[in-house]
Amino acid sequence: MKKTSLPMGMHDKLFKRARVTYQIERVISDLLMERGFNRIETPTLEHVEVFGDEVNPSHYNLFDKNGALLSLRPDITSQIGRVIASTQVETPIKFSYSGKVFHYNEEMRGLINEQTQAGVEIVGFPVEVAMPEAIYSAQAALDKAQVRSYRFEFSHAVVLQTIFSHLSLTAGEQKNLMVDIVDKNITKLKEFTKAHPSDFDLLIQRLPYLFGESSKVLAAARQITVDRVILSALDEVEELIGQVKPSLGQVNLDLAQFPSMPYYTGVMFKVFGDKVPDAFVSGGRYDKLFERFGASELTAVGWAIDIDSVYQAIHHSLKEGDS
Amino acid sequence: MKKTSLPMGMHDKLFKRARVTYQIERVISDLLMERGFNRIETPTLEHVEVFGDEVNPSHYNLFDKNGALLSLRPDITSQIGRVIASTQVETPIKFSYSGKVFHYNEEMRGLINEQTQAGVEIVGFPVEVAMPEAIYSAQAALDKAQVRSYRFEFSHAVVLQTIFSHLSLTAGEQKNLMVDIVDKNITKLKEFTKAHPSDFDLLIQRLPYLFGESSKVLAAARQITVDRVILSALDEVEELIGQVKPSLGQVNLDLAQFPSMPYYTGVMFKVFGDKVPDAFVSGGRYDKLFERFGASELTAVGWAIDIDSVYQAIHHSLKEGDS
Repeated sequence: MKKTSLPMGMHDKLFKRARVTYQIERVISDLLMERGFNRIETPTLEHVEVFGDEVNPSHYNLFDKNGALLSLRPDITSQIGRVIASTQVETPIKFSYSGKVFHYNEEMRGLINEQTQAGVEIVGFPVEVAMPEAIYSAQAALDKAQVRSYRFEFSHAVVLQTIFSHLSLTAGEQKNLMVDIVDKNITKLKEFTKAHPSDFDLLIQRLPYLFGESSKVLAAARQITVDRVILSALDEVEELIGQVKPSLGQVNLDLAQFPSMPYYTGVMFKVFGDKVPDAFVSGGRYDKLFERFGASELTAVGWAIDIDSVYQAIHHSLKEGDS
Repeated sequence: MKKTSLPMGMHDKLFKRARVTYQIERVISDLLMERGFNRIETPTLEHVEVFGDEVNPSHYNLFDKNGALLSLRPDITSQIGRVIASTQVETPIKFSYSGKVFHYNEEMRGLINEQTQAGVEIVGFPVEVAMPEAIYSAQAALDKAQVRSYRFEFSHAVVLQTIFSHLSLTAGEQKNLMVDIVDKNITKLKEFTKAHPSDFDLLIQRLPYLFGESSKVLAAARQITVDRVILSALDEVEELIGQVKPSLGQVNLDLAQFPSMPYYTGVMFKVFGDKVPDAFVSGGRYDKLFERFGASELTAVGWAIDIDSVYQAIHHSLKEGDS
C-alpha cells in the first residue's frame, strides 16, 4: 500500500496541470531574467537555523549523515538573505528564482505541502526605486501568466508592530488579538483594550474595518491615530499608492495585515484574485532579513508568487490542448 | 555558523551557473514536450518503499508528522512507475520530467548531493519503436543543450544478470566481482572462476576487455560465449546498433556495465563526454519497473540526463553574457 499511496500533502501533476504549471513557472522566470534579475538557485535543504531560532513544527525537518539538523526550505527569501550576508555578492543586486518550498499545512485546507514558487529580491537599491520595481515586476508576472483579474492590497508592517511593541505583547497574545480582528469580534477587542489600555484603544477596536479602497481607509485611520510612527507609515503607503495606482487601477489597503515573516519592516503587499482562496503574490520590504545572518540592515524588497494558485486562476480558461 | 554555512553536499548556484543550468533544463524540457512527451511532475517526498524494499542509507530519509518514513526522491523513474501502476493513466504513453534528486555521495567526489535531472519514460510501446525514440530524443537533448562532443556506450542487462543468477551470487559477491572487473584484476578473476567454476569462466575473465568499438567487442564476446540467452542479448544489441549508428557515429559497447537500477531488463546505454567524469545520460529498458508496484510487466524504456554534468561540459565555451 505504501508503495502506491502518496505521503500526506504530496501530489502528482499529470497532463494539462503538469504542462501548464511548468509553463507558468517558465514564462515568469524568463520574464524576470529579461527584466535584469539575476537567476539564483539555492538548495532544497538548509540548516534549520536559516529559517528561525527554533525548530518549527510546520517545517519538514531531518538529520543528515553528519548529524546536522536540516529543514526542507519553507521559503527562498531567507536563503537569499543567507547568500547576501555570507558571500562576496556585491549589492545593489536584483535576484530572481523559482523552485519548491515545503510546509505542513492544516489538513483541512487541501493538503498541499509542496508548492512551487517564483519570486524576486531587490537588495541595496533606494526604496523609491526598489518598491515600484517589485510591484511592476509582480504585475508583469501576473499578466505574462495570463491572470485576467487580480487586485493589489497594501499594508505596512509598522502598524501592528508598533501596537505589539508598545503593549509588550507575547507571540501568543499577538496571535489571539489577530484572531479577534479577523473575526471582527468587537466585544473581545473592547475587553482587550480594557485589559491593555493605551493611546491605541480606538485604533485596535477599528482595525477590523480599516480595510478597503485606499483613500477611505487612510482617512479613517488618520482620524483615530495619534502615534507619529504609524502616521508616518500611512504617509509612506499613501505616497506609494499615488505612484502605482495609475498602473494598477483600484488598490485596497488592509491595515490589519499580519507580517507573514518576522523580518518585514515596511510596506507589504498581497495580490488576490477571484478564483483563488489565498493570495497569488505576497511581498514587501524586509530590511531586517540580513540581521539574523550577522550582517547589517540593507534595503530589501521582494515578492513570491504561488504557481499553483496561478494555475487555479487560469486553467478554466485554457482548452485541453492549450499552453 | 550554522546559519551561514551550507549542509554537506548542498550548493548555491549564482550568476552564469544559475542562468545556464536553468536554460539547459528549460530547453531540454521544451524539446521533449515538442516531441510529444507528456510533462509529468512527481513530488519531492515519497514513502521509502517506492525506491526499494529496505531503507537505503544513501538516501535522505525522514519521518513526516503522520509517522510515515519518507525519502527525498533519489530518482524519478521509480515514481513514474508508481504513477503508471496505480492510476488510470492509459498506455502506451510517453512522459517527460525535470526536477531535483537527492543522494548521499562519497565525500571525495565533490559532494553534490542534490542534482537536477531531466528525462523521459516511454511505456507500453513496442521496443523497436521505444528504444530508437529514447536514443534519438537523448541525442536531440544533448544537441539542443549545445554539447559538442559525446559518445554513446551500449550494454545489455542480461549479460551480468545471467552470470549472477547462474552462479547464485549474493549482492556482496556481485559487488566484489564488479570491483575486480573494473580494476582489471585478472588474478582475482581467475581465483573467482576457480571458486565458482561454470561455462562462464572465460567470459568472466575476459569481461574487463569486452569494451570498445562495438563490432570488435561483439566478435570477441561471441567467441567465448556459449549461453543462448547472452548470445541472443548480443544479437539484440547488434541489431539496435546497426539501426542507430548512422545517426550516432561511432558507438562503444561495454558488456561489463552494471545495471545501475535493479529493474533493468534489456539494452542499456550511457552517454559520455570529454569534460565530465560521469555519464551525462543513463538509460535503458526496464520492463520490471512496474512489478514492485503490483502491476504486470510492461515494455518501458527511458533515460535521465544530469543537467549539472551538461553545464560542466559546455560552460567553458560560453561567454559570461551568453545564454
